[in-house]
Amino acid sequence: MADKSFLSDILKRIARAGPFLSSKSPISSSDLIPLCKELISDKGEASGLKTALKILDVYEAATPEEQRLFFLDVVEQFGVDHQVLQDAIDNWQSGDNASARDVYFAAEPKSQELIRRLNRVPGATARLVNMRANLLGYLKENPELKGLDVDFRHLFFAWFNRGFLEIAQINWSTPASILEKIITYEAVHEIDGWDDLRQRVAEADRRLFAFFHPAMPKDPLIFVEVALTREIPGAIAGILEHERETIDPNQATAAVFYSISNCQRGLRGISFGNFLIKQVVTELQRELPSLNTFVTLSPVPGLRRWIDLALISEDPLLRPEERTLLAALEDDAMPPADLTARLAARYLLNARSKKGTAFDPVANFHLGNGAILHKVHAAADLSERGKKISWGVMVNYLYNEAKIEEHHQAYATDSSVASSSEVKSLANAKTKASAVAPA
Amino acid sequence: MADKSFLSDILKRIARAGPFLSSKSPISSSDLIPLCKELISDKGEASGLKTALKILDVYEAATPEEQRLFFLDVVEQFGVDHQVLQDAIDNWQSGDNASARDVYFAAEPKSQELIRRLNRVPGATARLVNMRANLLGYLKENPELKGLDVDFRHLFFAWFNRGFLEIAQINWSTPASILEKIITYEAVHEIDGWDDLRQRVAEADRRLFAFFHPAMPKDPLIFVEVALTREIPGAIAGILEHERETIDPNQATAAVFYSISNCQRGLRGISFGNFLIKQVVTELQRELPSLNTFVTLSPVPGLRRWIDLALISEDPLLRPEERTLLAALEDDAMPPADLTARLAARYLLNARSKKGTAFDPVANFHLGNGAILHKVHAAADLSERGKKISWGVMVNYLYNEAKIEEHHQAYATDSSVASSSEVKSLANAKTKASAVAPA
Amino acid sequence: MADKSFLSDILKRIARAGPFLSSKSPISSSDLIPLCKELISDKGEASGLKTALKILDVYEAATPEEQRLFFLDVVEQFGVDHQVLQDAIDNWQSGDNASARDVYFAAEPKSQELIRRLNRVPGATARLVNMRANLLGYLKENPELKGLDVDFRHLFFAWFNRGFLEIAQINWSTPASILEKIITYEAVHEIDGWDDLRQRVAEADRRLFAFFHPAMPKDPLIFVEVALTREIPGAIAGILEHERETIDPNQATAAVFYSISNCQRGLRGISFGNFLIKQVVTELQRELPSLNTFVTLSPVPGLRRWIDLALISEDPLLRPEERTLLAALEDDAMPPADLTARLAARYLLNARSKKGTAFDPVANFHLGNGAILHKVHAAADLSERGKKISWGVMVNYLYNEAKIEEHHQAYATDSSVASSSEVKSLANAKTKASAVAPA
Amino acid sequence: MADKSFLSDILKRIARAGPFLSSKSPISSSDLIPLCKELISDKGEASGLKTALKILDVYEAATPEEQRLFFLDVVEQFGVDHQVLQDAIDNWQSGDNASARDVYFAAEPKSQELIRRLNRVPGATARLVNMRANLLGYLKENPELKGLDVDFRHLFFAWFNRGFLEIAQINWSTPASILEKIITYEAVHEIDGWDDLRQRVAEADRRLFAFFHPAMPKDPLIFVEVALTREIPGAIAGILEHERETIDPNQATAAVFYSISNCQRGLRGISFGNFLIKQVVTELQRELPSLNTFVTLSPVPGLRRWIDLALISEDPLLRPEERTLLAALEDDAMPPADLTARLAARYLLNARSKKGTAFDPVANFHLGNGAILHKVHAAADLSERGKKISWGVMVNYLYNEAKIEEHHQAYATDSSVASSSEVKSLANAKTKASAVAPA
Repeated sequence: MADKSFLSDILKRIARAGPFLSSKSPISSSDLIPLCKELISDKGEASGLKTALKILDVYEAATPEEQRLFFLDVVEQFGVDHQVLQDAIDNWQSGDNASARDVYFAAEPKSQELIRRLNRVPGATARLVNMRANLLGYLKENPELKGLDVDFRHLFFAWFNRGFLEIAQINWSTPASILEKIITYEAVHEIDGWDDLRQRVAEADRRLFAFFHPAMPKDPLIFVEVALTREIPGAIAGILEHERETIDPNQATAAVFYSISNCQRGLRGISFGNFLIKQVVTELQRELPSLNTFVTLSPVPGLRRWIDLALISEDPLLRPEERTLLAALEDDAMPPADLTARLAARYLLNARSKKGTAFDPVANFHLGNGAILHKVHAAADLSERGKKISWGVMVNYLYNEAKIEEHHQAYATDSSVASSSEVKSLANAKTKASAVAPA
Repeated sequence: MADKSFLSDILKRIARAGPFLSSKSPISSSDLIPLCKELISDKGEASGLKTALKILDVYEAATPEEQRLFFLDVVEQFGVDHQVLQDAIDNWQSGDNASARDVYFAAEPKSQELIRRLNRVPGATARLVNMRANLLGYLKENPELKGLDVDFRHLFFAWFNRGFLEIAQINWSTPASILEKIITYEAVHEIDGWDDLRQRVAEADRRLFAFFHPAMPKDPLIFVEVALTREIPGAIAGILEHERETIDPNQATAAVFYSISNCQRGLRGISFGNFLIKQVVTELQRELPSLNTFVTLSPVPGLRRWIDLALISEDPLLRPEERTLLAALEDDAMPPADLTARLAARYLLNARSKKGTAFDPVANFHLGNGAILHKVHAAADLSERGKKISWGVMVNYLYNEAKIEEHHQAYATDSSVASSSEVKSLANAKTKASAVAPA
Repeated sequence: MADKSFLSDILKRIARAGPFLSSKSPISSSDLIPLCKELISDKGEASGLKTALKILDVYEAATPEEQRLFFLDVVEQFGVDHQVLQDAIDNWQSGDNASARDVYFAAEPKSQELIRRLNRVPGATARLVNMRANLLGYLKENPELKGLDVDFRHLFFAWFNRGFLEIAQINWSTPASILEKIITYEAVHEIDGWDDLRQRVAEADRRLFAFFHPAMPKDPLIFVEVALTREIPGAIAGILEHERETIDPNQATAAVFYSISNCQRGLRGISFGNFLIKQVVTELQRELPSLNTFVTLSPVPGLRRWIDLALISEDPLLRPEERTLLAALEDDAMPPADLTARLAARYLLNARSKKGTAFDPVANFHLGNGAILHKVHAAADLSERGKKISWGVMVNYLYNEAKIEEHHQAYATDSSVASSSEVKSLANAKTKASAVAPA
Repeated sequence: MADKSFLSDILKRIARAGPFLSSKSPISSSDLIPLCKELISDKGEASGLKTALKILDVYEAATPEEQRLFFLDVVEQFGVDHQVLQDAIDNWQSGDNASARDVYFAAEPKSQELIRRLNRVPGATARLVNMRANLLGYLKENPELKGLDVDFRHLFFAWFNRGFLEIAQINWSTPASILEKIITYEAVHEIDGWDDLRQRVAEADRRLFAFFHPAMPKDPLIFVEVALTREIPGAIAGILEHERETIDPNQATAAVFYSISNCQRGLRGISFGNFLIKQVVTELQRELPSLNTFVTLSPVPGLRRWIDLALISEDPLLRPEERTLLAALEDDAMPPADLTARLAARYLLNARSKKGTAFDPVANFHLGNGAILHKVHAAADLSERGKKISWGVMVNYLYNEAKIEEHHQAYATDSSVASSSEVKSLANAKTKASAVAPA
């Protein structure tokens, strides 16, 4: 409806300049808590827009230290009402089973209502996401802020429900303001300016899809970059290359997810990636019926970190001859390709976090989604970052629709890793003589 | 962004037909609870879309009785985990103040997570709103369902936060599918077909504004109808008349809110009206700087109901001579105009609900928003409905920006009613001789 | 691009209220010709917007008689410059072949430049189309206006080039303002209000497509109504019925074009129908691959008119026994079904206009597009209009892609009518005894 | 209307892949003329889409030489029908005044109908504009092609009528594909990549407006860049600088048009600039009521070219001492600032083209639009180009609404140049002693 978008613009102006809402007198950060109390105490629900706007403005103008103190004050002063909670508990414990629900509402920290009321201001959602991003930075220093962070996450979990997200293809018809953010947010394979971006979104055999929330229409939440290819690629360079030959997308058989980036630090813990991948598979199948393979080309970010731990911890996954070789390795030296691949295969199949899930966060993500560990490639990412995290090893995870559910359940149940026999063989491959005895 | 809306359509198709999501085998309503358990037990977050879709489909195909039983099962089987709750309480009571928040999360009924997961399906939000509308119909019969209703309301309260709503002007460029809903949803002054609608949305001196939620883009949540006039009107007929003379909106000085309709029964208890009125005032001021008066022409839905109660309850607000006259009144007879106006004024100024707020729900709404009781009109709505609820009395509530906050606070604090001196005088006016002694 | 539509609105305001363009002082129709002279004489190209706007405003406010006189003045005063033309002819005749083109430009009537300059005002195109619609009404009375009409048509022919038209599906998401026009413009099977419209555009097995010109975004130029069916229908009633059973469009095998309406009288002689039909076929094939038959259900508007002529003209196409029967027919009586069908078949196959094309205008249109005369149905349209024009006979024209070009060429070359053998047999069928000798 | 844009995309696909339109067999450029004959001979109007598409495809795949030969063939074979023309002339000369119009239609070259039919293919307009751009390149070599060029221009003149153009603000929400073209098309002050573009379109005190034609929605026709400033600027560097301070647009008093670029070579001779400037003035006045000055900062592209001519032609506009000084000037040396300014003022006020209009094309454009020559600045554009064309001199032309019409008429009538007294004084200023006698 044409008028909608028109009025959306008005909304934004109103939030700042409307007669009911104008925020004229300058206020200092010391007013934040009183303003928050005013906002939350109001029984009527509408008059608080002006107050909420003031709080956001003053908060954003405050120094980091003022913001930290504000968070601490909020935790202290907008917590659970203990008397109300105790009463509800008494009531429940007196035998009224149904009143367990009342305990829930009695136990709700006031900070949740505070955040909900702040969100009433048009455009506030993005500002609250940023507020939590700031908050996250103080959790280490002030663990007492964790409760407030949980409040944010709880509300964001409701607000950013999958059903509210919209998928959009980002291409060369996308507004520059959004493309600019893609450049900024790309976290895996850096985008080096507009020409580099162009080849990732405007070439016929490239796709980029993102999730948006309607209240943040200019801020992608997460995006995935896809290359349409004739074969499953074993190295990233050919995909990012500018001078490569473009193929007709209707002749592509494989869709390669080569980069997934979360954009909003303030949404940590709210996961969209699995939904996005499945949505994109569906979309691509519809557009290009010739596609029959959906696969990633993924980094192995935990490999060298794990090796370092394994070297000092007597981890039996490392063989003696491998230990010898690795220990002898000079600082910037790369182990032989066959060794890095073998170690990566063994690591991905076996290394576990304390929770019992895959040690490697990227592996954990794709295996949790029901993908299978398909292939390991040595010397696949020779960038500085690639060498630093995994000696250049990259991996294909394969999304096979017919098996996704089964793999997902298996991994969810006992963290069992679905893998091709090739990767399994690789993990157990014999050490080459040459590798055993370096000069 | 052009591609967004395009993909939104795809989303909808996907929800039904996508390879990950297709719901093939017919399932009966007895499968609902097992499906819900499957949905909620899944540790991975993505694979449940298919299950959620099934639940919604099966629920909607079920008979009312099956639906009622389903609700009862949900309340019983998706409640609070008592052991977890007790543990959290023990922890808190052992002195860890910070852990009050943990009680909150421990006390969350599983039904909330169930509803959140159902909402992941694209387009599910409207379906869940309808589900709650059904649920509301069973509360009287099955009071044990109230807890589940509270869960819905709690989540809707978060989802339908003011910050997520979009205002739209509804006019003759609006899609017919939305206009059709306006005809259906109008609850105050019925819209008699498309020609009647046309004069309310397409005439130069008429406006209709609605709130929408992005996840329900074709379903208005609430709308308000506005007439632009040169004077504050004292009767509804002139506003609804088809043959009236249209005025140039730039010459209007008053914006008259003559109808406000909530559209979604399933959103009961989530209030939007106050936000909508204030937004529309701002929007109209921007468009038409000549406007200086923002006023309603409102029904008095509780008047006769209150009179009936007052007559049997010795309420001192009724004078003896008024009681005499009213008692003598024949069934369908109308009291004299001056009496109905005086009674209405006195009623609106003084009659209170048990909570201490205005007895009249419309009065309570506008006074709570900070409006002032401006004028009372006898014989202002001579429709059947108007005569039945208030002997045709209507009222103007005036929104005076400069005073809104003050009035709102006063009413919120002690329910004191802001009123013009005219209305006050009217309430206390002497009974006319002629009225005292009817023939 | 978001900003475009926004600015388009501005454009419209500018055209009336902009500082360069405001048209303040009231002017009478006697000023029209002087204003036109001013408009056309201006060497600069921009300053004329205000003048052009004035002309359009004054013209539209004038009485029909003033408008007629204005047209006569334009023809007289904005014709060809004879001296310039003579010079160009002399030059050409002196042997400069290339200068034939110069004759073209020398012979251009000034009225063409006048119309072009009037069109510079935003929104003027629709107003000029209406101006020509008016003009057409005077051609009979004032044949000297034909030249001016030719000018309009020549420019409209350039402006409404197929390449500039946009196709749009009209459905229940279309703005009411456009739907309202569909109701008004339907010329074949009247639309009886919004409910009737709803079943033609909003049912799953109905489609309505229209051509628009970007300069007239709210005014359809032509539209076609399509029913998706399982069989080729032989009567209109079943298609227009409200209580019929809707079918799943994916199970339809035939797309039936049951109504085509030109919307703009002022565009007479500029034909869009052939382009529209072919476009719609392409669109439907894309959306619904199960469709294999594209066919019309068409009226036979010339049948009875031709019969009347044939009866008085000794046309050998009528057999003696048919003449007898028809002559004996009472005023409102219907001939037997087999007779009306046989006559219609013979008429459509053989009756010719003076130009040698099919006598029946609808036949001429579809045959010219390459369709084949597929089937004749008696008693297929029993509305008043249907009986009046063709005793209720309707016809299917079949669009068979593989043959379209061939049929089109054949008809274009020698007006030979492509027809099914069934229709041919029908045309030659023997007269039934019962029909020969009515009681 | 939502469906419109959707179907527009379909249109494009149809043009290439639709069942009626597919162009399968490869054809060589030698087939172009036969195809054109086929296209133009077809009496039916619809079946030619496929043929038209073929012609465009084959033409675009042809070599420049093949294209040139094609143009020559078209001129020869698609000219005026001499017999038809002679008949029409005979008829007219026999005294039928009204039939002068018939001569017009008789004299129309067939190439016009050919171009019109080519344009029926969706998306063809941009391709025809490019075709003419190619054609223009051969006019010098093959003057016989001028007639064909005139045909193109005549049709483009009708198609690109002001009333069909849409204005759009180009900003950071504009699709990258369009922004990229702005970078390419900027002809006055080169845009050095995306960062440079960003500061011209995304800064609060910068604006860029363009005209689009609906049939070429991704190709701007012309655009103008505007700086909002507090004072009329006297040099370009401060406007293009990246590190400058942005001002609040509501505090700007002057809108400075500092660059106007025509984008489509194939539209040479179809002028939009005057319309665009006036439209932008109106738009800016609406958005920013504080603006009271509309002015350009323009190059003087003809200055040094004219000086060179004047030096060898005894032009009396050059004073003897100026001649001496200029003659003594070394190749890359710059004359003193006061001299360049004085010469520029005198040049702009007096130098005339053969047609009698201002010699300087930019002056001719703005004076023709009704602007006044406001101020001359030496050393205002010290780029290589600026020094080369005008020794760095730039000029402000002032658009004073109240005087625009008057100035326009005066210039249109006798090319009289509206100028500030300051510029007049400057033109006549005495030569400084220091300048007379260079060391």
